[in-house]
Amino acid sequence: MAIKWFKKFFKKQEIGIEKVTFIGAGNVAWHLSQALESIGLIVAEVYSRDLGHAQKLCKKLYDAAPVNSLDFSSSEAELFVIAIPDDAIAEVASSLLLPPNTTLVHTSGAMAIDLLVPYATKFGVFYPLQTFSANQKINFKHIPLCLEASDAETLALMERIAKRLSENVAKVSSAQRKVIHLAAVFACNFTNHLLAISEQILKVNGQDLELLKPLVAAMLEKALKNGPAGSQTGPAIRGDQETINEHLTLLKNNAPYSKLYMLITRSIIDFYEDD
Amino acid sequence: MAIKWFKKFFKKQEIGIEKVTFIGAGNVAWHLSQALESIGLIVAEVYSRDLGHAQKLCKKLYDAAPVNSLDFSSSEAELFVIAIPDDAIAEVASSLLLPPNTTLVHTSGAMAIDLLVPYATKFGVFYPLQTFSANQKINFKHIPLCLEASDAETLALMERIAKRLSENVAKVSSAQRKVIHLAAVFACNFTNHLLAISEQILKVNGQDLELLKPLVAAMLEKALKNGPAGSQTGPAIRGDQETINEHLTLLKNNAPYSKLYMLITRSIIDFYEDD
Repeated sequence: MAIKWFKKFFKKQEIGIEKVTFIGAGNVAWHLSQALESIGLIVAEVYSRDLGHAQKLCKKLYDAAPVNSLDFSSSEAELFVIAIPDDAIAEVASSLLLPPNTTLVHTSGAMAIDLLVPYATKFGVFYPLQTFSANQKINFKHIPLCLEASDAETLALMERIAKRLSENVAKVSSAQRKVIHLAAVFACNFTNHLLAISEQILKVNGQDLELLKPLVAAMLEKALKNGPAGSQTGPAIRGDQETINEHLTLLKNNAPYSKLYMLITRSIIDFYEDD
Repeated sequence: MAIKWFKKFFKKQEIGIEKVTFIGAGNVAWHLSQALESIGLIVAEVYSRDLGHAQKLCKKLYDAAPVNSLDFSSSEAELFVIAIPDDAIAEVASSLLLPPNTTLVHTSGAMAIDLLVPYATKFGVFYPLQTFSANQKINFKHIPLCLEASDAETLALMERIAKRLSENVAKVSSAQRKVIHLAAVFACNFTNHLLAISEQILKVNGQDLELLKPLVAAMLEKALKNGPAGSQTGPAIRGDQETINEHLTLLKNNAPYSKLYMLITRSIIDFYEDD
């Protein structure tokens, strides 16, 4: 017992706080709460509108209490992490009852830090630049953690936590974070959608995306290694109008895809004409 | 000497031919010619309009002669592989002088097999579904090889060769091949371009694509493992109009990118509305 107490005391001295509460029990909360416990913090509560969700996550944590009330006035937590969909953050934050002297952060890539001004004196953004899903082991070591804080002391606290999780911690302003998020939408959400379209084109014709996996993997490896601008291949950059026309003929009964094909082809041509 | 002769004889018996000539010295010819030598075939000649290109590739081969004439009437090759840009295949094929009873194949994903009808009696398509670049080691083992042939005997020859190179050999008709090629344009060329746009957005704002690498790698891993349609994330599928509007505001001085953003966002919304 004495050793356990000493370890806890020592951890607290190192990080500066001991207990953290998660507002939200979705994918980000799921992975981040367990990661914070792995570096020695204790999750005090997990809030979800749906108590069942909070309970499910609490089973993965040492001693967290599932709650569906936003009244934390008697909570022992020193840090509150809002990890819920962007458009719900303002509303939930406005309903929070926090104990005095706590720090409030959100984990959103798109939302400004200013959103939290009315609700806490010490606040920040703790944005893990990664996509999270339920059935996936996450290693935070290489995940970029983008931090922003209301003041130097809060930033220092967030850095002590972040650097224990990841080798890739950066101070990123709200304006920069928005640009990064926009770039991530192009690089991840949109590329994933093109893969979905590709799969659909193949399926309709009795083929499987499996066939393209080696090609896609090689493309990505090359793009990330040598830079995508120098790795562009295909009919658009070759100016191969014959192939482009054949592809548009194949898409002639699918107006949305042929429109997309034409616009991206035009974008590729324009991109390299500027050189 | 006797052993070498025996080995050669044995190889020929196994594959059915001994010598192959490459028309073209670009990336596909570069990798495929060396791969064919690795399974025991001998490259007799490498043709390029630019003799220097042919010479450069021949240095990588055992005993190939670099040529810049299309008169192969006295060549010992039994198989001719056309590996040049799509729009040059018909013209080059029409200028070929081949020895009798040889097999002529092209390696294009987009061009039909019929293209070769006027120029040979035994012909086919040997399409490696991979992107090739000069400074890259290629292992053919997992590269899908899509085969099509004028007749069963030619197909059997091509299969004997292909199966020695790859575990992933499929008979694919010209019509199917075109669809696969179109799907590959979406999955590779277009996704690469979106990464290039992402990089440009970051660069303009003093950030680096490096930051997004873990995110992009995770997205791709998830898309290829669980299927892209089930892996879609981001503001479009969440119906997060606020974030979409903020992104469009960031792109307000870049009409082509904002047009692309809107069209792909619309495409994602439509894709999942159909469910």
